[in-house]
Amino acid sequence: MESTHFSRFLFLLLAAGILILFACANFPTYLPPQPSPRLSSRCSASSSSSSNSSACKSRKIAGILKQPPNPTAESRRLRHESATPQHPLDPLTIQELNKVRHVINSHHLFKSPSSSAVALHTVVLEEPPKSAVLRWSPGDPLPPRKAFAIARSGGDTLLLSVDVASGELKADRASDSSPSGYPTMTVEDMTSATWAPFASADFNRTVTDRGVELSDVACLPISLGWFGKKEEDRRLIKVQCYSMKDTVNFYMRPIEGLTVVVDLDSKDVIEIVDKGRHIPIPNAANTDYRYSAIKKNQRLDLVNPISIEQPKGPTFTVTGDHLVRWANWEFHLKPDPRAGVIVSQARVKDPETGEMRSVMYKGYTSELFVPYMDPTDAWYFKTYMDAGEYGFGLNSMPLDPLNDCPRNAHYMDAVFAAGDGTPYVRPNMVCIFESYGGDIGWRHSESPITGMGIIEARPKVTLVARMAASVANYDYIIDWEFQTDGLIRIKVILFLGVLDI
Amino acid sequence: MESTHFSRFLFLLLAAGILILFACANFPTYLPPQPSPRLSSRCSASSSSSSNSSACKSRKIAGILKQPPNPTAESRRLRHESATPQHPLDPLTIQELNKVRHVINSHHLFKSPSSSAVALHTVVLEEPPKSAVLRWSPGDPLPPRKAFAIARSGGDTLLLSVDVASGELKADRASDSSPSGYPTMTVEDMTSATWAPFASADFNRTVTDRGVELSDVACLPISLGWFGKKEEDRRLIKVQCYSMKDTVNFYMRPIEGLTVVVDLDSKDVIEIVDKGRHIPIPNAANTDYRYSAIKKNQRLDLVNPISIEQPKGPTFTVTGDHLVRWANWEFHLKPDPRAGVIVSQARVKDPETGEMRSVMYKGYTSELFVPYMDPTDAWYFKTYMDAGEYGFGLNSMPLDPLNDCPRNAHYMDAVFAAGDGTPYVRPNMVCIFESYGGDIGWRHSESPITGMGIIEARPKVTLVARMAASVANYDYIIDWEFQTDGLIRIKVILFLGVLDI
Repeated sequence: MESTHFSRFLFLLLAAGILILFACANFPTYLPPQPSPRLSSRCSASSSSSSNSSACKSRKIAGILKQPPNPTAESRRLRHESATPQHPLDPLTIQELNKVRHVINSHHLFKSPSSSAVALHTVVLEEPPKSAVLRWSPGDPLPPRKAFAIARSGGDTLLLSVDVASGELKADRASDSSPSGYPTMTVEDMTSATWAPFASADFNRTVTDRGVELSDVACLPISLGWFGKKEEDRRLIKVQCYSMKDTVNFYMRPIEGLTVVVDLDSKDVIEIVDKGRHIPIPNAANTDYRYSAIKKNQRLDLVNPISIEQPKGPTFTVTGDHLVRWANWEFHLKPDPRAGVIVSQARVKDPETGEMRSVMYKGYTSELFVPYMDPTDAWYFKTYMDAGEYGFGLNSMPLDPLNDCPRNAHYMDAVFAAGDGTPYVRPNMVCIFESYGGDIGWRHSESPITGMGIIEARPKVTLVARMAASVANYDYIIDWEFQTDGLIRIKVILFLGVLDI
Repeated sequence: MESTHFSRFLFLLLAAGILILFACANFPTYLPPQPSPRLSSRCSASSSSSSNSSACKSRKIAGILKQPPNPTAESRRLRHESATPQHPLDPLTIQELNKVRHVINSHHLFKSPSSSAVALHTVVLEEPPKSAVLRWSPGDPLPPRKAFAIARSGGDTLLLSVDVASGELKADRASDSSPSGYPTMTVEDMTSATWAPFASADFNRTVTDRGVELSDVACLPISLGWFGKKEEDRRLIKVQCYSMKDTVNFYMRPIEGLTVVVDLDSKDVIEIVDKGRHIPIPNAANTDYRYSAIKKNQRLDLVNPISIEQPKGPTFTVTGDHLVRWANWEFHLKPDPRAGVIVSQARVKDPETGEMRSVMYKGYTSELFVPYMDPTDAWYFKTYMDAGEYGFGLNSMPLDPLNDCPRNAHYMDAVFAAGDGTPYVRPNMVCIFESYGGDIGWRHSESPITGMGIIEARPKVTLVARMAASVANYDYIIDWEFQTDGLIRIKVILFLGVLDI
């Protein structure tokens, strides 16, 4: 129990940092989804886990049902660059984001020689008033398209509203409306924090003293937060480091007790807490969790190819990239850099009247708070807000077709803005599919002697909208599951994959 | 809340009785499974619920994957009549049950002129000692086959042990070992109780006085139990009745407050509690829950054909009708008249050693207790033991292929003994299938910048063994789900189908 607790601390400790690296890698250039090399190798492997066989099988039986080919990076880029909004709630397009970026960069607030460079911590659609959205129906012109942005410049946080068509920009100081707090970190904030410690001779010395080569060290910005007077009015983050030597699972090799406090604005090292010299760094042996690294005799027995098939294709439709219709449901679904996905205007058909009834106007993950509540020096500050500080959307890796989602899945890309406002595409961030695992949705069997001979049973088929936020070693899966009986089931699943080795 | 509570009372109230009718209908003759007429009609229906479309679809895409045809009644009978046990825990075969019946009926205990007819409340395998079962391996001769039976004769309850080969019979008085209580009702007990009230002129009068025709009345043996001195040493049951006029859903038309106390041994009406004359019988209108009775405009939208496909067939094997092997699992599965199904010797392969490790020697539903805890006259006695008093196995309706279980399911029949020991077959009582609904079994995504490019995700494929006990308006589904990570998930699902109208 205690060790599990400690392990969880240890793993979460690293969540923030790997995020930095990941986000950095994806910013601002657009990476086409890479089919996992393990898939193909697994397919040829004689012994195979359910994962592999599933991956292989789904490919092998492609003849049963054509799967839409994964679009090329080029076709994907062209599609998004020419995309135009179809619905009042559709996210900002690449063209709109570029316009917004131009408006902000050329605004006097950020152009005057005195002003420092502006960093955009958020650029998303400023949704029209609910009344305007409800009034709108297909064919109507869209309400004015506006962007909401959070900008930091010269130590100030500004809340911006940009009218995309007119280019009009309104700005408010955040301090005027909210007394304290800072916006979601930018990718640049997090990346710079990973390298900041190496500018400190003290840091480099203590690492070397522990017998760790600097070239093997990876530092991760662990956790933000306000911890007393001396940290007043500063955007500080605690950074901790790990040895990447001899394993892909560096989460298992922490340099324990070594905490570096970094100023996210100046990038300065403010303080070094160095208390773990006596704590050895765990061995790298047997920490690799990859299927390809698992000994053959330790692999699961083969499971035959299995998949969900729909010979007539899926029942749902996706209009204008974001409006989903399925069975008796209709809802708007869009990626969001902070929340991950936002589900809007969920409506279900009333079987009595045939009318579409509003079930939910807007739903999303507001926050995922992970307080460790350990008072010791290296742990007291671990109070993660995985959505608000790191961004569920920013950390949603592309879903792995066939393994993350079944073969009948439809994929949705995200278009986000980097810290300088440059739009980029996060491919396959969301998948939508009809789920049928053999469950029963409704049943009643009646006694034959009554002469009724009733056997009423109805299979359970649902629609699932899925995203997976990989916040370092925490792999969150958010499933929005829609049932034909009008119920919405929201599942938040946490995998601590690197624990399962 | 209150009305829901009352409704649940009302529905459960009827559970016991319909069971009687059902069991009666299935006893002792063997009924081949009838494809629900609704299936075909649904298939041709333009509008269709997920159930129907599923049923139809699964038929329509039969070309994708051949489904083993449902065996004919004749072939099924022949197979079971010639069946021989393959495993120490295999249930008694038809041949063995016939032998046991002969031994008991010709035994002096039950043959002497003085002795009354014997009723067999249980005839099942008397499992060999655990040590003998663990010693046994395929190819070894089976340990001696014995039957355990509970017989009632002349008001006595006897526990019988019959050696199938030698015909040796050992008998103990239950009263010697257990101070009180009675065995599971026989089908005859329950059936006779449904007709007993009509022998009472008082009963017939009060029913007629309420404007209900006797020909429309169905009575059900509601609940057993011991309620005070005056019921000492008697096998009593409370019977209540309903109007079947103008609806298949007579559960909705109770003759409230009318309770008839019946002696299960003498079939005599002991007492009539008649307090509900002022309570009207609910209308029959809009109580029909059948799909065919639902107005077209109230049906769900069409869901396209969907099913689980395994082009190479299922991964699991069933040896000797009961030994199941799948992935890294092995277990023995058999139907049981009381428990429903019994899972024995569940073993999983240890990935370290490759050895099969014992996870569970024997698991089953010990009881399902439904105490209503309402002190009023017509409700205080409702303290159902749905497994022990009525029998989960006895009340398992044949599963409805495509609707109760997916198309890749394997079906297992049950062979039970009727109250006079006559064996009968309950077809398709259990189904076994591999489940894949698009869920993820394990995942970890790694940051591309580390150069690892790790995207590890493994779909979740499980093995499900399912039975459905239809205890009147309570439709229980018992799923034993086996995960490749060594976990067994037992799901007990309750549908109150007739509530959902």
